[in-house]
Amino acid sequence: MHDIRFRDPAGTVRNGLLHDDHVHFGDDAHDLEAVDVLAPAEPTKIVCVGRNYARHAEERGEDVPDRPLLFLKPPNAVASHGSTITLPAGKEQIEHEAELAVVIDEQCKDVDPEDADDVIRGYTCFNDVSNRDDQSREQNWVRGKAFDNAAPMGPVLAEEIPDDAAVELRVNGETRQSSSIEHFIFSIPELIAEITTYMTLEPGDVIATGTPEGVGPLTDGDHVEIEIEGIGTLEHDVRQDA
Amino acid sequence: MHDIRFRDPAGTVRNGLLHDDHVHFGDDAHDLEAVDVLAPAEPTKIVCVGRNYARHAEERGEDVPDRPLLFLKPPNAVASHGSTITLPAGKEQIEHEAELAVVIDEQCKDVDPEDADDVIRGYTCFNDVSNRDDQSREQNWVRGKAFDNAAPMGPVLAEEIPDDAAVELRVNGETRQSSSIEHFIFSIPELIAEITTYMTLEPGDVIATGTPEGVGPLTDGDHVEIEIEGIGTLEHDVRQDA
Repeated sequence: MHDIRFRDPAGTVRNGLLHDDHVHFGDDAHDLEAVDVLAPAEPTKIVCVGRNYARHAEERGEDVPDRPLLFLKPPNAVASHGSTITLPAGKEQIEHEAELAVVIDEQCKDVDPEDADDVIRGYTCFNDVSNRDDQSREQNWVRGKAFDNAAPMGPVLAEEIPDDAAVELRVNGETRQSSSIEHFIFSIPELIAEITTYMTLEPGDVIATGTPEGVGPLTDGDHVEIEIEGIGTLEHDVRQDA
Repeated sequence: MHDIRFRDPAGTVRNGLLHDDHVHFGDDAHDLEAVDVLAPAEPTKIVCVGRNYARHAEERGEDVPDRPLLFLKPPNAVASHGSTITLPAGKEQIEHEAELAVVIDEQCKDVDPEDADDVIRGYTCFNDVSNRDDQSREQNWVRGKAFDNAAPMGPVLAEEIPDDAAVELRVNGETRQSSSIEHFIFSIPELIAEITTYMTLEPGDVIATGTPEGVGPLTDGDHVEIEIEGIGTLEHDVRQDA
């Protein structure tokens, strides 16, 4: 049973529970198919981590960093489970990056690693959609990472996941990424401690923990699935105008 | 007469008008000294522009870019007129950057340069506070630019400013930066068009248009004034723990 944010048939936004393909809120139960699933959080910011798996750093030809490589996606990037994301037009290399995302539960700053669990609301699946055409040309990855629809997340929030949760991404049914969060370079408590040394995190803020090896192209018409053990499967479609 | 966002003596947040050192809301008029001035916008994101004055690019030893250099500050960076900002502890080189900021009035995407004026709510003064210790070590300027209190702005929103508005920054009364927005490399309409090619801007979002030459250090106890012709003077104090 996981937390799910949805719009009910009357159009009202609710925070309910998903159980046996039914969405529960109060005494109401809806067929999962009858509701619009919304992103499981409304972040004021998404703090993303780059190169947090050694094999992904390797495939990008980059060194493993000595401290977390951080970048930002603003709220305009959020997209939900079941949506069709629109990619920037006319770009040649836009890629998927399957990631575990952490949703923050309370306003916090200067969090000690040993207290990090206390500020976590839950875990969800995340696609760090990346526009390499621009990313490779800019100091800060804004055109490359912060465009509209660049952060699909969902479908639910899980309160607990295994320490070695499997992460898999499929495009049109074909497996492209397959790894486990046990290969993190920096742990979630280390990431929360480092980020909150500099900035206050707010309830609903998201930390995207980096992608494993196997990133690859997305093109018009693709169907993406990101499955993380203990959470479920985020699915979205892709549209790109020429 | 300019728009001013403030907390009235009863603690309520209001959008009023500043006139002759009095803040007006409905039939009430308060002494400016009797209210808390708040940041003139509540952005979902601040899109900042780097190297938008040739002489500042020069002083940093950088080339003038062929398209706007963009980076992001999240809402946690916002600080208000009259506040004391706290800088990250233990950093040796934190600097001021006086900038004109543009506040967006409506949700917009793919804005043509000739329509850019229609999406602007107003103009305010902005300090792009920059932590060079970390900025120089990271790909994306997150620790360097996105920390808490790194975006003081205010005191008011002006609807119109001259095309050659003077920008001046003083620290403890001494002038450090003195230029004019007539030296922009990329104009405000060009910036809005470029940014909204990639991302939707929301009401209250802020574009910080870059700093002229003369950036320099901030240290514990400093008093900063940023004056822009047609707007007024943003003032804030600085605290930094060792």
